[in-house]
Amino acid sequence: MNRIALAAALVAATSVASAQQGPKPEDEIQYRQSVMTVIGRAMGPMGAMAQGKAPYSAAVAQKNAALIDTLLTLPWNSFGPGTESAAPNKAAPAIWKEPARFKQSAEAAQKAVANLVAVSRSGDEGKFKAAFGEAGKACKSCHDDFRTKEDHR
Amino acid sequence: MNRIALAAALVAATSVASAQQGPKPEDEIQYRQSVMTVIGRAMGPMGAMAQGKAPYSAAVAQKNAALIDTLLTLPWNSFGPGTESAAPNKAAPAIWKEPARFKQSAEAAQKAVANLVAVSRSGDEGKFKAAFGEAGKACKSCHDDFRTKEDHR
Repeated sequence: MNRIALAAALVAATSVASAQQGPKPEDEIQYRQSVMTVIGRAMGPMGAMAQGKAPYSAAVAQKNAALIDTLLTLPWNSFGPGTESAAPNKAAPAIWKEPARFKQSAEAAQKAVANLVAVSRSGDEGKFKAAFGEAGKACKSCHDDFRTKEDHR
Repeated sequence: MNRIALAAALVAATSVASAQQGPKPEDEIQYRQSVMTVIGRAMGPMGAMAQGKAPYSAAVAQKNAALIDTLLTLPWNSFGPGTESAAPNKAAPAIWKEPARFKQSAEAAQKAVANLVAVSRSGDEGKFKAAFGEAGKACKSCHDDFRTKEDHR
């Protein structure tokens, strides 16, 4: 291993170890929570525009919709066995009791966000607001069914 | 506000409030840590390939390099005043003492990752390994200078 590869290995050490052994349940919880935190932040500027509290910007809509679209592909494999309670989290038991319904709900959110991406590219403010509303509704529906109000272990 | 907009507003409530009032320091810390957690996970599969512990896949390289490239644009505005110690975190005092050097170091990492994206698109395994090494080195350099080993408040 040359020095550059060694430097990279040092940076990636934890993740590489995880990739080989399978991530620890607490790391899976931290990962899916992190993805959702970044998504939540990206919702902010779009929510403000949808509510007329910030002027509409097609660039802001496009950037944040695309970011959420990418991030929404990431968390679903991190709800594996043992990740129900390895660290404080809001994942509801229904995720593991009704996996098909959870998958359907997650996919509905991804579909709504894909539509938001397409609509954001059009630059039409009215269509953006409607599509953002639908995306928010899909997010909320999944949260209502599969997220607890408070952290649990 | 119609029902769809209301649903969206409910989902985005926290973020919207933050966008208006400015995010709380502890939320900024959580946000930048979340971004870094998602980046760390994306480093994993590339690190395994760079070290020959996983077979090279151009698709895996492209996907993860692009994800990190996008995420690396996000955390820098979340190192504002008051975010040094509002929650346990590893941000080093040098971030605020030497902001120009921090900016330079962060930009060097972004540049190295932009190169990794370009190289990943070429599909050349050798070039990928070299570019990943350089990116890892740039990440490590910034971490060495601006990240503490343990959480502090």
